[in-house]
Formats: sequence, C-alpha cells, structure tokens
Amino acid sequence: MTTTKEQKKTGGLAGIVAGDSSICLCSAEDENLYYRGFSIEDLTDHSSFEETAFLLLRGYLPKPNELQDYRKKLKRLRNIPSSLKKVLELIPAQASMMDVLRTGCSFLGTIEPESSNTNALDIADRIIASLPSMLLYWKIFHDGNKIPNLEIEEESLAGYILHLLHGKPPKEEHRRCIDISLILYAEHEFNASTFTARTITSTLSDFYSAICGGIGALRGPLHGGANEKAMELIEEIANPKEAKAHTLDLLSKKQLVMGFGHRVYTKSDPRTVVIKKIVKNLIKTKKEAELFEIAEIIEKVMWDEKQLFPNLDFYSALAYHFCGIPTPMFTPLFVIARSAGWAAHILEQRAHNKLIRPVSNYIGPSHQSWSKAKRNDS
Amino acid sequence: MTTTKEQKKTGGLAGIVAGDSSICLCSAEDENLYYRGFSIEDLTDHSSFEETAFLLLRGYLPKPNELQDYRKKLKRLRNIPSSLKKVLELIPAQASMMDVLRTGCSFLGTIEPESSNTNALDIADRIIASLPSMLLYWKIFHDGNKIPNLEIEEESLAGYILHLLHGKPPKEEHRRCIDISLILYAEHEFNASTFTARTITSTLSDFYSAICGGIGALRGPLHGGANEKAMELIEEIANPKEAKAHTLDLLSKKQLVMGFGHRVYTKSDPRTVVIKKIVKNLIKTKKEAELFEIAEIIEKVMWDEKQLFPNLDFYSALAYHFCGIPTPMFTPLFVIARSAGWAAHILEQRAHNKLIRPVSNYIGPSHQSWSKAKRNDS
Repeated sequence: MTTTKEQKKTGGLAGIVAGDSSICLCSAEDENLYYRGFSIEDLTDHSSFEETAFLLLRGYLPKPNELQDYRKKLKRLRNIPSSLKKVLELIPAQASMMDVLRTGCSFLGTIEPESSNTNALDIADRIIASLPSMLLYWKIFHDGNKIPNLEIEEESLAGYILHLLHGKPPKEEHRRCIDISLILYAEHEFNASTFTARTITSTLSDFYSAICGGIGALRGPLHGGANEKAMELIEEIANPKEAKAHTLDLLSKKQLVMGFGHRVYTKSDPRTVVIKKIVKNLIKTKKEAELFEIAEIIEKVMWDEKQLFPNLDFYSALAYHFCGIPTPMFTPLFVIARSAGWAAHILEQRAHNKLIRPVSNYIGPSHQSWSKAKRNDS
Repeated sequence: MTTTKEQKKTGGLAGIVAGDSSICLCSAEDENLYYRGFSIEDLTDHSSFEETAFLLLRGYLPKPNELQDYRKKLKRLRNIPSSLKKVLELIPAQASMMDVLRTGCSFLGTIEPESSNTNALDIADRIIASLPSMLLYWKIFHDGNKIPNLEIEEESLAGYILHLLHGKPPKEEHRRCIDISLILYAEHEFNASTFTARTITSTLSDFYSAICGGIGALRGPLHGGANEKAMELIEEIANPKEAKAHTLDLLSKKQLVMGFGHRVYTKSDPRTVVIKKIVKNLIKTKKEAELFEIAEIIEKVMWDEKQLFPNLDFYSALAYHFCGIPTPMFTPLFVIARSAGWAAHILEQRAHNKLIRPVSNYIGPSHQSWSKAKRNDS
C-alpha cells in the first residue's frame, strides 16, 4: 500500500496520479491547456472541432486532404439506423436529454457492436458523428411529432447541430461559436467522465460501454451538469441591480454556485478567456446585455468573497443561450464535444492497459456473529 | 500531490485507497470476505440473496417480517413496462447479453427516472428485481419469437431466473446453487465496476447512470467476463488426459488463463471454497465428472507453475453450466448479483460525497508551435 495520511484525508483521489497520458496537459503551472501539445488559444483561433477531434484521436494534425476526408467521413456517419430511431421514439418526451444520449449510444452498441472485425477508430468516429443525430432526432420527433430529416447539407458538426435544432441554416457567428465551444469542451485530462471511460476500458470492455459510462458521469451537476445550473442561476436574477445581493444570499446560505472553481486550475480557467470574448461579441439585444452584466457581477462577487473564478461552464451557458440553444441541451453539447476526448483516452488506455482497481479503507463493523444476530432478532 | 514513485510505477491504482467504506471487508489478512461484518460462510450457509441484498443496502439483517416484506416487494417489482419490452424486441438476437442489460437499464431510466420525488432505495430494488426480467424477456422473445410471460410464481430471484430460462420450476439444488452464487457475487469492495458506479455517482448523477456504468465495466474479460472465458477454456479441452498439456501450452504462449488470481487476495479466494463444494455435489453424469476433473487439473497446473489460485469465476463457470445456464448468460448473472453491491455503494457514496477526479502524469509532447506545424504541412 502506498497510501498516505493526506491521501485518506483528501479523498476523491484529488492529486493522485491514476496513470500516464500524452493526450492533454492541463497545466497548473502556467494555468493553460494543451491538446497533444497545442495550446487551446491556437486551437480555437485556427482550428475546427473536426480538426481537433482528428488531432486528439490520431495524435497529429491532419494534412489538408486528410482533414477533408475526415470531414466527409463524419458527415457520412451522421445518419442513424431505423431501429435506433424507433427506440428514440419510445423514449418519453419529458426524458432527460442525457438519458436519451446514454440510451441511444447503448442501443447503437447492440446493432453495430465492436468485434474483432471492427476498427476502434471507426467506432469512435461513428459515435462522435451520430450522437447529435440521436439527440436531435428524439427532440424534433417529440417537439413536433414529425419524422426528422437528418440528411441536411452542413459541412461542420456545429452547423449540423444548429441547422437541425432550428430548422434552418445557422448564422455564421453562431456556427463558429458552437464550433469553438466544442473545441474547448473536447478534452480535459482525467476528469470524472474520462476517468470513468478509462476505468470501464481497463476491464477490456467495449467502446460503447465506456462512452455510456462517460455520459452517465457527465450527467451529474458536479461535472457536465454545471453549465445548465449556471444558466438557471443567471436567469433567476431579475436584473443586474439584484445580482450582487442574490449571489451573496446564496453564499450566506452555503449553497453551491455552479460554474466556479476547478480541481486542477487554481487562479483561472484558460478556456473562460476564450469563451467570454465570444459571448461578449454575440450580444445583440438589451436583454442579452443585461444577462452578460449579471454574469459579470456574479463573477466579481465569487472572486471577492470566495476567490473562485468562473470555469468554462459559466460563460458557455451564456454562449449557448445566445445561440438559441435550450438549457437542457447544454450538457448534451458537452457530451458531443467530449466524446472526442473520451475516445482518445479509450484508445490510449487500451494501448497500455492495466486494470483500474483501487481499494477502500474499511470503516464498517468488525466480525459479526450470525447466531447472535439471529438470536437478537427474536 | 501525494503521489509516490511506487504509485506511478504500479499503475491501475493498485493498493491506492480511493475512499472509506463500511459495506465490505475484503481481508488480505485472513483472506476472507465479510459483508457488513458477516462472513461469506455465514451468509452462504444461512442466508438468501434477498436477505443479503437487504443487508448490503440497509446495513442490517432484516427481521423475519421485514425479510418477508422485502421478498414481496422484489417480486412485485419484477414486471417491466411495455415500452421497455418493445426496446428489448428491437435489440438483435445476436447481441451481447451485457449490452441488453446496459440498454434495458438505461431505457428504464428514461421512463422511471430518478427525481426529487423518488426514493433511491426504491430505485435500487426496482433495478435488482427487473434486470433478470429484461434479460430473459429478450432471450425468450428471440429464441422462440414468442411473447414471454414474466408473471410466474417463484418466491426467490434465483428460482425466477431458472424458471423463466427453462420454462419450468427448477430443481431445488439448482435453485440453491444459483442463490448461493448470487450471494457470492453480490459485493466485493472497490472492484472496477463498483468503483465505476461510485465515480459516476460522485458527480451527483442518477442511479441508472451509475448502474449502466457498472454493467459496462463488468462486461470486460478482465472483470466479469472471466467466468465465461473460464468455461470456454474448460470446454475446449477434450478430456482430462489433455488438460495438463493444454494448460502448459497456454502458459508457454503467455496467454491469459481467466479465472485465476486476484488483485486483493494473495493465497486463495474464500468464495472458491464455497462454490467448489457446491459444484462437486451437483455432478450427475460422466461428462460432468470429466469437466470437474479437467477444472481441477487446470487448478493444479496454475498453482504449480504460477502460484495462482482459482478465483470465484473459475468454479462458478462449472456451477452455472451444471445448472443448465448457457455460457453467454454467466456475466449477466454476475450483473444481477452485483447490482445489490453497486446500489449499496451508490448510496454510501452519496452519503459522504466527494467528486472522484484523479490526475494524469503527462508524458506527451511539450508546447507545439501552430504556425510551424502548419508550415511543415505544405
């Protein structure tokens, strides 16, 4: 046992190295984020989600023709089988969208299973390409009780999502905002959902099981669910004048304010700078300007009172809202982006596998006598 | 950081304490296993799976009337909704049974979701009671293309499984064998699937997500899948005379022999003693006696050559085989049993929650220049 006292006290494996990885550097030193060595600023300035997914999965930047082929492949893999559509129709209209994705992915694994004849990269690409289709097929079907057409002409995944959701080609600035958001959310080292996917993979289970586990973990408000909770908070404040008092009130009641702080970064989240700038540029209406003002006031109070900074989730909530995305779809968008990171980690775990199996510190009752327990019963 | 050199080297979190628990003591000292302080011998000698599940979930042995009520509750919760039946019908006949359970559980979470109005214990009981129904509804439907009747009169889960599977009331010795096997498989501390369920729970996600993750992790041959692999090995040996040479041949080719050794126990698996005795008593035919003989020869070779002992999976394979259970159903039976343990850990994790989020040791490329990478492209 290599357990230290500190380890036991800390809990949640905080600071514990669970394995080697060459996918992502979430650097506490320069408080920056790198995918395969490329900074998040370079990726959001110059790249696309598709190129980033290629980089994460294949380990290098695609040449122009490789990127073109990859875009075509993802586009080709968007449509979903008819039996999966039937399952999506059977999922109730009021279901959680995360449950829709978890179930859709799990069912896809029964009709297109991984086997010795399949290529893991193909399955990864299939999942990345088809998750938006599952989600929006289910949503459009139940919203309007009509059969959605998934075969629309959009080159990027970001454009495809917005076009399907709104039934028309998106504005270029919205398409780019979602594209950048997908890059920012694509990967983040051994976070809870990625670590879940790796733990499942470590038993040599299949790709779909690992992704379903990732979706399940991301569903929780302490992980992916935070962007939805951030939006709910911003919206429950009537106007900027009330923002400070409202936030202070939450803090005095010891309520969690979602979208702040991070287990790895200590001073700021490098992704927040990127998404906040985009959010600011998207503001068109007085209402939007007010929401942004409220968000900035919450940010200031959280820093002044708790020395906590907004993480990616906080301003992503506003970005999605300004792009016309309904709040319950925020975490599902996170899933779509992170599926690229999960897939990269699944491949890496397989390449150097060791079963992930910690131990517990037993604090329960010592040996109980059966006959005595049963005597006390009567 | 509390990381030690040894930790980094070991990998897979071996020996790392990931949290406190009062559910199960998997003792390396006396090489024994205790659920809530009761030894596995006492439980398999005196208890039933239902009583054990109650103990794991509620933390104490039920009084006679409590046990009676609990049995009735589990029986009442067996039947599954018609939309879930339709989904099971849509899953192909050749699908993995583990994928059937993962998908069935995920779908159930969309129609009977956890919310602030539901009781977590009720959801746990619902899942434990309905997993066998999902599995056997799917199997019977596809085997005979008929609509299965799930409402049969069997008091125990073990009897229900065997009765549904074989279409007639089981022999008492088979019912008891499966009952004991369910007790033995019900719980085992922070194994990979339980740890997966706890990691998912630690984000404050829902019950179904955590169970789906557990199923996905158990699916792998380094975890639950081992009992199926053990049976395949025993069956591929034509007769006892060939068993020694065959096993030595596998070892010389450095192939993994499944069902041997354990991350926690070092000398023997206390559960093996229990299940091996039962297997021996089930032998009726010459063929069965031969299979048992083959298994014992493999056991001897593995000890002589590698000092590895058979774990629970090895003789459980024969137990299931002798009860007329098809091999692809072995790991699903493990799921049904372990769902009780997972549920207990989900409740415990929630009661003292801390996000499970380790870190990785980055070994990838250092900062890459975007412009340079792109120049090299052309």
